[in-house]
Amino acid sequence: MTINNQHGGNLDFISKAYKISKKDIIDFSGNINPLGVPESIKNAIIANIDIISKYPDIKYSKLKKSISDYIGVPKDNIITGNGSTELISLFIKIIKPKKGLIISPAYSEYEKEIKLSGGKSILFPLNEKEGFKLNLLELFDALNNDIKLLVLCNPNNPTGSALNIHEIKKILEYCNSKNIFVMVDETYVEFTDINKEISSINLIEKYKNLFIIRGTSKFFASPGLRLGYAVCSNDEIIEKINKNKDPWSVNIFAETAGEIMFNDIEFINKTKILIKNERTKIMNELKAWKNIKLYETQANFILIKILNKAITAPQIFEYLIKYNIVIRDASDFEFLGSSFLRFCILSPEDNELLISKLKLILE
Amino acid sequence: MTINNQHGGNLDFISKAYKISKKDIIDFSGNINPLGVPESIKNAIIANIDIISKYPDIKYSKLKKSISDYIGVPKDNIITGNGSTELISLFIKIIKPKKGLIISPAYSEYEKEIKLSGGKSILFPLNEKEGFKLNLLELFDALNNDIKLLVLCNPNNPTGSALNIHEIKKILEYCNSKNIFVMVDETYVEFTDINKEISSINLIEKYKNLFIIRGTSKFFASPGLRLGYAVCSNDEIIEKINKNKDPWSVNIFAETAGEIMFNDIEFINKTKILIKNERTKIMNELKAWKNIKLYETQANFILIKILNKAITAPQIFEYLIKYNIVIRDASDFEFLGSSFLRFCILSPEDNELLISKLKLILE
Repeated sequence: MTINNQHGGNLDFISKAYKISKKDIIDFSGNINPLGVPESIKNAIIANIDIISKYPDIKYSKLKKSISDYIGVPKDNIITGNGSTELISLFIKIIKPKKGLIISPAYSEYEKEIKLSGGKSILFPLNEKEGFKLNLLELFDALNNDIKLLVLCNPNNPTGSALNIHEIKKILEYCNSKNIFVMVDETYVEFTDINKEISSINLIEKYKNLFIIRGTSKFFASPGLRLGYAVCSNDEIIEKINKNKDPWSVNIFAETAGEIMFNDIEFINKTKILIKNERTKIMNELKAWKNIKLYETQANFILIKILNKAITAPQIFEYLIKYNIVIRDASDFEFLGSSFLRFCILSPEDNELLISKLKLILE
Repeated sequence: MTINNQHGGNLDFISKAYKISKKDIIDFSGNINPLGVPESIKNAIIANIDIISKYPDIKYSKLKKSISDYIGVPKDNIITGNGSTELISLFIKIIKPKKGLIISPAYSEYEKEIKLSGGKSILFPLNEKEGFKLNLLELFDALNNDIKLLVLCNPNNPTGSALNIHEIKKILEYCNSKNIFVMVDETYVEFTDINKEISSINLIEKYKNLFIIRGTSKFFASPGLRLGYAVCSNDEIIEKINKNKDPWSVNIFAETAGEIMFNDIEFINKTKILIKNERTKIMNELKAWKNIKLYETQANFILIKILNKAITAPQIFEYLIKYNIVIRDASDFEFLGSSFLRFCILSPEDNELLISKLKLILE
């Protein structure tokens, strides 16, 4: 059975197919913060339940102010949206790239949107042999004149590999000289220890060809809200997006939650510490295993390659589901295959359970 | 001062401009059900607050089932969206009409979307002298070969006038023969006493060129949710919309509320009775006034024309704001002008207050 779990959102399907109650599933496939939804935003929604009767602020001023304080970028450079999906879609529809180049393997949404806007995607592979490192010179060779958009996710999903800010600068400079827009999806950047060395946020003012995408589904464990934002200093792009955008695509609960969550320093710090500690612990354990290839990760998930040819990722998926554990069989990502699987970092107990089960079958 | 209150959503602006606390405003401009948000949906959200951590159902199956039961149309003919705005936008983007004809005066969003999709709008006036009745023969003459889309709102905003099902059938037949799509916005249809004589819902199976828009902001007093739906039996259109649509544009609170609200028979009936009684009462009162022209309305709002040339709608707006009353100065609607104002039906006490103040200034 192929499990198309690209959005980490098909637990309904798995629950039915394997007859497991959804609440019993230990979901290592969704890349969602194991601390769950911040209490602060649940309380804010309950306390303000009557806001259903109000239209959201058409300018989303308080929400943008809150994001502005969080990331240190002027309010006017922030565009809020219905999840990062709406912003990816709007940006690509406006750029309308005849050709877009996507650093791959990657989230399938970029390719889908480029196709919907009438363009063609070229998938540029990360170098698996070098731990999914991006070869900049080869990339520049591939960025020929037809290409109007470069898409990269940093840290990248599903590989966990990240570009540092110096590499991104080089990419932005090169692309600027060729009139190529660069869309950087930073959905997972808050899970890194070295946010400042990886995030492109501080480059936003200098590079008008940069468009950064951020979400709240993963780090703030709030996929139900559908709250995302984009960061960009190109006035022409911002104006075009605002003109094309539905005025109220962020609903009032997402707006209210967003006004709170970015100030919840306790939740943010607790998450960072938990993910860092668990990532270190799990990586140290996995480094000792002989039958897998392990890749450095800056994200809250880990990709491994099974070296034992007799075992495949779909088989491991089937094996783990007996224990109510759902991992991401990464077979269907381009440039990967049936030896790749991905799992995210959950609570210490859940992680231990997964690692012990994986060890049994793999080592 | 021009008050651009087309969405009924700029109370923030009015609150600041006139230094009135938002909660003190008696809003006759928003066309929102005075009963407020159904308790049932507030309770459902509070009881299920943890759903923030879940993705909405990508198929919105339960939500569609609930709408299907409510309107008596198969689930597969229902498309859910982020307010009716997303559905208007998606439909027009897919049809891409070179020319669209809009029965006017009307909500400005239709024209905006036709323009965004690269088309041109022709505004076809309702006949003010005959109580904003639509002249079908003149309409058919205006529907020349270039026009690919006809847009009408039924009952119409801001006039309150409605087409009956026989007239709509004639329009659909004629448009079918000319390959013209018909978008019927039924945002206000649930406020009518004679829903079945006005709504196009029962025509959906027969007419593949019919696309009906419904919202929940007005009748269910829930603009914060951003929940709308479209009804259509044209498989090609449904498929194209689903392909172009963001997968999760309805957030999980809107989804949860939508699964409940359409079954809240008590709220629905209470609303219908309240609006019917108050509409009858207010209309009877206004019929006796000599300095206004009154138009029949099927909606939860009333449009009047001031016959006294010395008084304008903007002046009445300014006069009423002193009592914290906000009406809709309808000056900026096409084919209207500074003698037109619109107000919606609120609670008996609020309505009495408005009518007494209007009487003072107008009679």
